[in-house]
Amino acid sequence: MGRWEPNARGRLAEAALELYSERGFEQTTVAEIAKRAGLTERTYFRHYADKREVLFGGTELQDLLVEAAAGAPESMAPVDVLAVGLDAISGMFEDRRAYARRRQAVIIANAELRERELIKLASLSAALAGTLRRRGVPEPAASLTAEAGVAVFKVGFERWIAESEERGMAPVMRELLDELKSVARGGHGA
Amino acid sequence: MGRWEPNARGRLAEAALELYSERGFEQTTVAEIAKRAGLTERTYFRHYADKREVLFGGTELQDLLVEAAAGAPESMAPVDVLAVGLDAISGMFEDRRAYARRRQAVIIANAELRERELIKLASLSAALAGTLRRRGVPEPAASLTAEAGVAVFKVGFERWIAESEERGMAPVMRELLDELKSVARGGHGA
Repeated sequence: MGRWEPNARGRLAEAALELYSERGFEQTTVAEIAKRAGLTERTYFRHYADKREVLFGGTELQDLLVEAAAGAPESMAPVDVLAVGLDAISGMFEDRRAYARRRQAVIIANAELRERELIKLASLSAALAGTLRRRGVPEPAASLTAEAGVAVFKVGFERWIAESEERGMAPVMRELLDELKSVARGGHGA
Repeated sequence: MGRWEPNARGRLAEAALELYSERGFEQTTVAEIAKRAGLTERTYFRHYADKREVLFGGTELQDLLVEAAAGAPESMAPVDVLAVGLDAISGMFEDRRAYARRRQAVIIANAELRERELIKLASLSAALAGTLRRRGVPEPAASLTAEAGVAVFKVGFERWIAESEERGMAPVMRELLDELKSVARGGHGA
């Protein structure tokens, strides 16, 4: 096989999720994931640093969020920058709800994966706070806005993958951000 | 030594922090912590499940927050319940700033400890969301308020332990909660 593998990342992610669902995370090796994807272990490690990372897509989510936030109009209020960022992220997930649901079941079942998820969310928050500071938002508003944004994303993501939810991610995120605004104003929850 | 050791928890926490600061977290054993505290390993494990937990005080913080939130007046808006909870937590930390600063330096230096901290914050959020739901706050407002509350606590805690900060924790937390409200209203940060 050549160095370039069509959609190697996606094939590895799908193979990993299949194996983690069938056998459990602990019982699966990188060699098995690569084999199922029709790729080599070497290719795996070109794309993902370890066995956990394959479920978190590297820095794709963070890059999208940061790029969208950095590119928002200069005068925009931080909370509206959040809305722009959440919209951008939502686009990336649009066709992935079935995958996201299966993935969540695997993550919930494994403490190491739950830890990695929390670390990813903390990195996301730190990266967004940095972007807001570069936009001129002072501290502690920058960190607080970023943490609140990640809170919306976290709760919104869980809602979006719920069995009963049929809306796309973008409207779910917008609803959650509105709910946060309402709660902050002293509302009791819709 | 008898089964009851005066302030065993506090002595173990202080001994652990000293050793983690001096030698590093990895290089310290539970036996050494117990010895430095003048206690036995057995006593250590009566109080803390593992080597990390000694820096996180078990469930003390969570219990305080949940108790305060559960006991707030029935008609109180979720965001005001947050304020009550943050006030209660702040009381517990009042005399511990020097300890908190040393502890933070140790946690920042170790990935395992950073992970445990994130897990603790996630548990705190889940417990608070449960309390809010029991108070009649619907989802997703309950989870969102809890996540926002933990965001305020996280950013406020970092601010409170900053070298330049001289105010107590309670006013710092109140300021951060006000900042969150302002950001949610479309403010640009104080």
